[in-house]
Amino acid sequence: MRVPRTPTRTPSTAEAPRWLDGEQQYAWRAFAAAMVKLRWALECELQQDAGLSFVEYHALAMLSEQPGHTMRMSELAEVTNASLSRLSHLIKRLELRKLVRREADRTDGRFTNAILTRAGLRLLTASAPAHVAKVRELVIDALSPAELRHLRAASERIIERIESSAG
Amino acid sequence: MRVPRTPTRTPSTAEAPRWLDGEQQYAWRAFAAAMVKLRWALECELQQDAGLSFVEYHALAMLSEQPGHTMRMSELAEVTNASLSRLSHLIKRLELRKLVRREADRTDGRFTNAILTRAGLRLLTASAPAHVAKVRELVIDALSPAELRHLRAASERIIERIESSAG
Repeated sequence: MRVPRTPTRTPSTAEAPRWLDGEQQYAWRAFAAAMVKLRWALECELQQDAGLSFVEYHALAMLSEQPGHTMRMSELAEVTNASLSRLSHLIKRLELRKLVRREADRTDGRFTNAILTRAGLRLLTASAPAHVAKVRELVIDALSPAELRHLRAASERIIERIESSAG
Repeated sequence: MRVPRTPTRTPSTAEAPRWLDGEQQYAWRAFAAAMVKLRWALECELQQDAGLSFVEYHALAMLSEQPGHTMRMSELAEVTNASLSRLSHLIKRLELRKLVRREADRTDGRFTNAILTRAGLRLLTASAPAHVAKVRELVIDALSPAELRHLRAASERIIERIESSAG
């Protein structure tokens, strides 16, 4: 994203922002636009096909892969990249629709589990083919296997940075 | 995103979903997680530093690059990847904070322009260094120049697909 310079202030070495150069600018703009557009395209598809947001779909998919379709709320917050309070709101909405239920962990009552219901699994199963087809159309089939490997490597590098920055 | 199979139905060639293979699955998961985590990290930074969402910041930055800091609402909707109705809500919020104002296009009254105010430019200028530093830390400095070129190429490919799919 190009940003206006601050010409009124003499930059000191300690304070001067390191603006992006041309190549970096183009790369960041393209990546930022792809993120925004892709998120929006997938939100539209999922909303239309399943009445789910991208993060809601992701939460149901994560639960579907666990033994007993069950996960601790704190772990689910981590894998869906949500704070615990945001996840609680999201799970409450899914609970009202009977797609998920919550109960205290039997082995340690301090923890709450989220559990995918049969209705939740049914909705996920019904919406998965169209969602995967959209992901293929917009991402997977747009890239060669080598390009896909590059994209994965860059994504993993970015995730590492975010996690070490937050920690 | 791994998704449950539908074992109860015999797949016909016309209907069988083309699930992602292992490599594709890993790449898509990493990319999807990077998108969600990065968006969230940048939203937090911008909210804290400027009280702006990622898309609001992007809209102000786009306006700042135009002659007269002015853009038609319809064009601004396009470059921010928002529908016109979503953009209207966003611009209304920014207008209440006096960061943007709207007026009818003088050359063609059917169009409405959005104009960045001096206060809007000030907020953008003040928040840009921290935002660029965060983008550097999490993306640009995490990748080599070659990796950044690959990321740009993949992003442009994905954008093309989204635009031809929507068109």
